[in-house]
Amino acid sequence: MKRIMNAPESFVAESLAGLVRAHEALVAFGSDRKFVRRRHLTPGKVALIAGGGAGHEPMHSGFVGRGMLDAACTGHVFTSPTPDQIVAAMDETDTGAGCLLIVKNFDGDVMNFEMAAEMASGRHAIEMVVVEDDAATGAGVRSRGRRGMAGTMIVEKLIGAAAERGAGLADLRALGENLNRRIRSMGVALRGVTVPNNPRETFSLGPDEMEIGIGIHGEPGLQRARFTSADEIVRVLGERILAEIRAEMALGVRGRPLLLVNGFGGTPPIELYLAQGIAHRFFEENGIMPERSLTGTFVTSLDMAGMSITLALLDDAQVELWTAPVETPGLRW
Amino acid sequence: MKRIMNAPESFVAESLAGLVRAHEALVAFGSDRKFVRRRHLTPGKVALIAGGGAGHEPMHSGFVGRGMLDAACTGHVFTSPTPDQIVAAMDETDTGAGCLLIVKNFDGDVMNFEMAAEMASGRHAIEMVVVEDDAATGAGVRSRGRRGMAGTMIVEKLIGAAAERGAGLADLRALGENLNRRIRSMGVALRGVTVPNNPRETFSLGPDEMEIGIGIHGEPGLQRARFTSADEIVRVLGERILAEIRAEMALGVRGRPLLLVNGFGGTPPIELYLAQGIAHRFFEENGIMPERSLTGTFVTSLDMAGMSITLALLDDAQVELWTAPVETPGLRW
Repeated sequence: MKRIMNAPESFVAESLAGLVRAHEALVAFGSDRKFVRRRHLTPGKVALIAGGGAGHEPMHSGFVGRGMLDAACTGHVFTSPTPDQIVAAMDETDTGAGCLLIVKNFDGDVMNFEMAAEMASGRHAIEMVVVEDDAATGAGVRSRGRRGMAGTMIVEKLIGAAAERGAGLADLRALGENLNRRIRSMGVALRGVTVPNNPRETFSLGPDEMEIGIGIHGEPGLQRARFTSADEIVRVLGERILAEIRAEMALGVRGRPLLLVNGFGGTPPIELYLAQGIAHRFFEENGIMPERSLTGTFVTSLDMAGMSITLALLDDAQVELWTAPVETPGLRW
Repeated sequence: MKRIMNAPESFVAESLAGLVRAHEALVAFGSDRKFVRRRHLTPGKVALIAGGGAGHEPMHSGFVGRGMLDAACTGHVFTSPTPDQIVAAMDETDTGAGCLLIVKNFDGDVMNFEMAAEMASGRHAIEMVVVEDDAATGAGVRSRGRRGMAGTMIVEKLIGAAAERGAGLADLRALGENLNRRIRSMGVALRGVTVPNNPRETFSLGPDEMEIGIGIHGEPGLQRARFTSADEIVRVLGERILAEIRAEMALGVRGRPLLLVNGFGGTPPIELYLAQGIAHRFFEENGIMPERSLTGTFVTSLDMAGMSITLALLDDAQVELWTAPVETPGLRW
């Protein structure tokens, strides 16, 4: 496995240094380089702190900036950041309105963010949102709930915009919980991924295989299947997303559909746009007309080939939060 | 080779359809789907038309929109669009101020755009800018001049902003020619690329090999070399870029450095940011302090693993054109 890298030990640190260097008007390292933070904080705004293992860039460090996160804590590749990093980020970015921690639902991440919250609870008002959008792990498949996937970016964008407008800690947490019912994703891998310092692929796929319902750390999916056409792949992902979204609609969720096609790092834009068109048509044929869409490489699994599809049903206020200005290394409009 | 695709024959058309669908407020198909155009033209503005083979997305169709192109003509994968497509784009987007054709310096592209210009010269005022930024093909290496690489995106952005401000055809052409002396790129491939419908890789690399000075269609580079560290890869690319930029500086070119690290489609953001940091330091150590930078996947070679580094020395007016607002599927700020 060839990577643009000097050594596995310095891979993550050097990449973060490049990001900070490239966007130094916007972001800076926190103390001891434990996290990436906004260069300029807004006093009185709730501090939004996310994080997770490296390998998912631009998430999360690339989502630090105006209209999105205040800090991102990055662990080793596919490994949670330590509580120590998260506490340091809270101490440095809480300007009085408290901290909201945005965490993908993976055991290690949830455990370390919870531990950090406990350690810092004497000094900070803290709330936590655990993002659960992976339709492949829905409805009783996984005892710890759905995993966090590319929908995390949507949650960070919307909560980021709401915080920028002055929403308080309780409202932001409520927004996150509301979004957990509105966003469903599902991914497919065409090629496994190799973690630096670990020569074994996280999983191996034959030349005619694909893995449906994969997680973003290369966790096994729902099903190993025979590789097939784009139409068929989108149909398989789309049907499960649809089933999960319809289950929420049956409980009263309504909204304007946003469709996100996200590349896992090794799949080029020409294929992602092709999938976007097919997914658009698939949902339309099933009575859901995507009103907005986004196509790109936002939540990766190193250079895994494959993609995820995310459908979100946003209410009017949430659509406004989505379209609000954002200026981060990885998302900008 | 697994791709998210239905069939090789419909690969490009379906991808373009997805792009248009996803950004329908901004872009539309031209007549007979021969090209992608801005949905709303600005009467009296010079029409900017670019194009080339598919496989380089988001370039060029993803750069159609406010502040950048008016139309993009896409051929089959790595194959020039036909003169017919280019003429149709001119006929539909020239609102009276003429057409500027922006073409990467590859024989097929130059030939077909020239033929189109000749065919339409009775109806339109037409000028052409041929982009030549590839340092690997500089200084006598290639009789037809330097190839066009990721610097093309910078040329399209700056000319796009100037056209938006009302610059005329002659001035835009002069700007393009001026930029040809200010922008140098060089690429490296870590893994070859397979064109749909052609099972053979354009070139094959062993597990310990890389190709230095590669073109964006997988053309052979300057040198097959042993795969090495990111520091060393950046040094090799950087030194040649530096030599070429210094040759222009010796002839009087001065400017504020912009540093672009561009992924070829199969290389993830974590590696590109790592390279950005190293390239930043490399140029600084050589007396060139990058003032602005951009990191991402903009000019691809399907899912080729690898990247290119581009250095541009922009004068004050050009820096302003770079920072001017842009709203396209692939570039937005």
